[in-house]
Amino acid sequence: MKFIVQVCFLISSVFVLSQTNEDKLVFKKIFDTALTNSSSYEMLDYLSNEIGPRLSGSLGAERAVEWGRKELLKIGFDKVSLQEVMVPKWVRGPKEFALIETQPGITFDVDVCALGGSVATPSVGIKSNVVEVNSFDELVKLGKEKIDGKIVFFNRPMQPNLVSTFQAYGKAVDQRVNGAIEAVKYGAIGVIVRSMNLRLDDYPHTGTMNYGDLPESKRIPAAAISTNSAEKLSKLLKINPNLKFLLRQQCKTFDDVKSYNVIAEIKGSKFPNEIILVGGHLDSWDIGDGSHDDGAGIVQSMDIINIFKKINYVPKRTIRVVLFMNEENGLRGAKKYASVSKKNNLNHIFALESDAGGFTPRGFSFTTDSNNFDRIEQWKPLFEPYLIQSFEIGGSGADIALLESKNNVLAGLRPDSQRYFDYHHASIDTFDAINKRELELGTFSMASLIYLFDKYGIVK
Amino acid sequence: MKFIVQVCFLISSVFVLSQTNEDKLVFKKIFDTALTNSSSYEMLDYLSNEIGPRLSGSLGAERAVEWGRKELLKIGFDKVSLQEVMVPKWVRGPKEFALIETQPGITFDVDVCALGGSVATPSVGIKSNVVEVNSFDELVKLGKEKIDGKIVFFNRPMQPNLVSTFQAYGKAVDQRVNGAIEAVKYGAIGVIVRSMNLRLDDYPHTGTMNYGDLPESKRIPAAAISTNSAEKLSKLLKINPNLKFLLRQQCKTFDDVKSYNVIAEIKGSKFPNEIILVGGHLDSWDIGDGSHDDGAGIVQSMDIINIFKKINYVPKRTIRVVLFMNEENGLRGAKKYASVSKKNNLNHIFALESDAGGFTPRGFSFTTDSNNFDRIEQWKPLFEPYLIQSFEIGGSGADIALLESKNNVLAGLRPDSQRYFDYHHASIDTFDAINKRELELGTFSMASLIYLFDKYGIVK
Repeated sequence: MKFIVQVCFLISSVFVLSQTNEDKLVFKKIFDTALTNSSSYEMLDYLSNEIGPRLSGSLGAERAVEWGRKELLKIGFDKVSLQEVMVPKWVRGPKEFALIETQPGITFDVDVCALGGSVATPSVGIKSNVVEVNSFDELVKLGKEKIDGKIVFFNRPMQPNLVSTFQAYGKAVDQRVNGAIEAVKYGAIGVIVRSMNLRLDDYPHTGTMNYGDLPESKRIPAAAISTNSAEKLSKLLKINPNLKFLLRQQCKTFDDVKSYNVIAEIKGSKFPNEIILVGGHLDSWDIGDGSHDDGAGIVQSMDIINIFKKINYVPKRTIRVVLFMNEENGLRGAKKYASVSKKNNLNHIFALESDAGGFTPRGFSFTTDSNNFDRIEQWKPLFEPYLIQSFEIGGSGADIALLESKNNVLAGLRPDSQRYFDYHHASIDTFDAINKRELELGTFSMASLIYLFDKYGIVK
Repeated sequence: MKFIVQVCFLISSVFVLSQTNEDKLVFKKIFDTALTNSSSYEMLDYLSNEIGPRLSGSLGAERAVEWGRKELLKIGFDKVSLQEVMVPKWVRGPKEFALIETQPGITFDVDVCALGGSVATPSVGIKSNVVEVNSFDELVKLGKEKIDGKIVFFNRPMQPNLVSTFQAYGKAVDQRVNGAIEAVKYGAIGVIVRSMNLRLDDYPHTGTMNYGDLPESKRIPAAAISTNSAEKLSKLLKINPNLKFLLRQQCKTFDDVKSYNVIAEIKGSKFPNEIILVGGHLDSWDIGDGSHDDGAGIVQSMDIINIFKKINYVPKRTIRVVLFMNEENGLRGAKKYASVSKKNNLNHIFALESDAGGFTPRGFSFTTDSNNFDRIEQWKPLFEPYLIQSFEIGGSGADIALLESKNNVLAGLRPDSQRYFDYHHASIDTFDAINKRELELGTFSMASLIYLFDKYGIVK
């Protein structure tokens, strides 16, 4: 008996060792292919430079859907389909205009852009005094008396002394999302919000905002102001609290329009009913070309099967690439995908999203139980030679979060976050801000993780 | 006895725990100061934009020395001194010119720059056929018959499928350093070398080359060619192997001139004879402003004592900041510093160099024995919350390597290397390529490591 146990132990050790060696070899093959023979950069070049901005409901978004469908067919998926979804259609209109007037005839230019979903100002703009605040609590303290008829200026900066810039974003973005609905309670006629940007520069950063249940007639215009302009306004307010701010923007919300998630599938050779999903969001904001947010995630996801084909890896499980529509201002694509999946009892055992920029990958964040996380941690030595070192429990991605169940694992790629908010939702989120190697290292990391989940499944 | 041992164990555990907690707190203070109240970025702005290029022997280098001395005095070191050293003086002269002529009158522009130390061409340039090679072995195979009278074109790219771009650099840079001296053996009249750059772009990257003992009359001109131009030349050679290449450059080596290492010191409060050195190199190449190479390392090193003063940390050991002269083309400053230190029996227990760019820090590389490395590894948990995760045995930095002894530890900061060779020795190594947060994270990492070595010394 002891002998048998020993032999079994030996066999299983040899098995584990040979598996590990095989995995190492596959990682190397994926790495070599990603860094020398992948299509991520070329695909992103096309998406960014030939299609460009692709806000939900725009012609750019329509073109992106058609491009995605055709590219995925070229890659050789078994099936590529479009999943219909109604999305909001918000249009920025002509370039916004704003200035500070410290006294009649003495003005200072500032850089602004409307927040996504905002209403327009009257065609001549709004012009009023400004109240600067750092939080919603300050609104309460100031009250209607001090705010009524004025423009509220939210100027709380992103906190610089946090390693994760996403954490800093999370602590500041309430001003952008809910600034208008909070300020209007006290009679504000408009809000301007310091851009979600850790640098001092001249680029306003847009992003979604909402009015909750506020009737249309009560909605007030909301704009982002560049960090340099925010500093300027704040300094001028200290000299002249009675200065006036003029804001003019002509954005408009139309009726919802039809759009699509793009879904490509390659059937699993052994467990076709176990689905592994990888994706990002195809829509972008309208002022850059969305290369980092989320063109990078789109092409990295699309390129994985390309790489598997090049290294002759045949997935055991069904791999689905999903290009989600409307992450930026509604998550309609994600909601539609999740509800259809639920209705059809689809078994997504693993889903991975890349939506944090095309920078050097540092690791992954997981939504999972401890059994699966323990196993994931055992995989770390495979990633470490490639400097993929951070594996943590945390969020995954906005588009896949709704797929969470007790029977699956969700993950998000975590690239270096230091530069992300330099570009995020700004006009400089463009292809020239992408480094080819960094993008490809992300593709490699994702393909390798997908390979492991495909080979080993999840712990049940 | 058992009781006493237990009590001792308890006391020592409590001690270790309280030390660790104190270290955590100091790390947090250093981090907060580096990210919210440091001078690294401002100092680099001045060095890069007001002084600019500072090749050894140039007026820029002289100004940098004077700036460094004054800045270090302002920071409040006990003593700031200049250590005289004779350095080479090589001058590029007017902009280089090159073109490809596929037939008389049909020409193609290419982007080139002289390699540092190269001789000039005749004033009308050299014009000849081109032999493309990937290695010195190929020169041997081609022999004098095929090379004599021609220009040798070294076109082996940096290997893309290596995680560390420095490793890729190490495997390609022989072409730049020794290309001329190898090619001249077979009668070549000049060499052009593919730029040490992983991207395809239009920027030639300079860098040092040498002629060994070759008498002046035998030296042939050597230039770098941008990666795009290298690809162009290679493609045209396939169509027309008889094309001609024209190169004109008017660089010149003058007699050595006097320059300086800048040395600033703050005496240790407890162990004044134990020196901890931190530094980088003050000289840069002449075609950018050397923001990454090595302005970043200079200001990070200078800023450490700034930060210690702000958090009221008084070093136990003597901290020396050294701004080395002439790393790029001679290492004369490093050699001088090492020889004077040896003569004076200076006890450098630890030396740290930052000379790998101002990008997000990933960790440190150490030259040390296993006892010290074991202890360094115990410090990892202090760094990991800040995503400083790589600690490895390896090189330190060119300027401090000569200080190696059995009784000290050397280290190099290891930032993310993916973008470094996009800028390295090129005209685009300028201040706009620096991200403030990434630079400051480097300063934090270095200050924290210096703090630990100052507090605990080295294991003997």
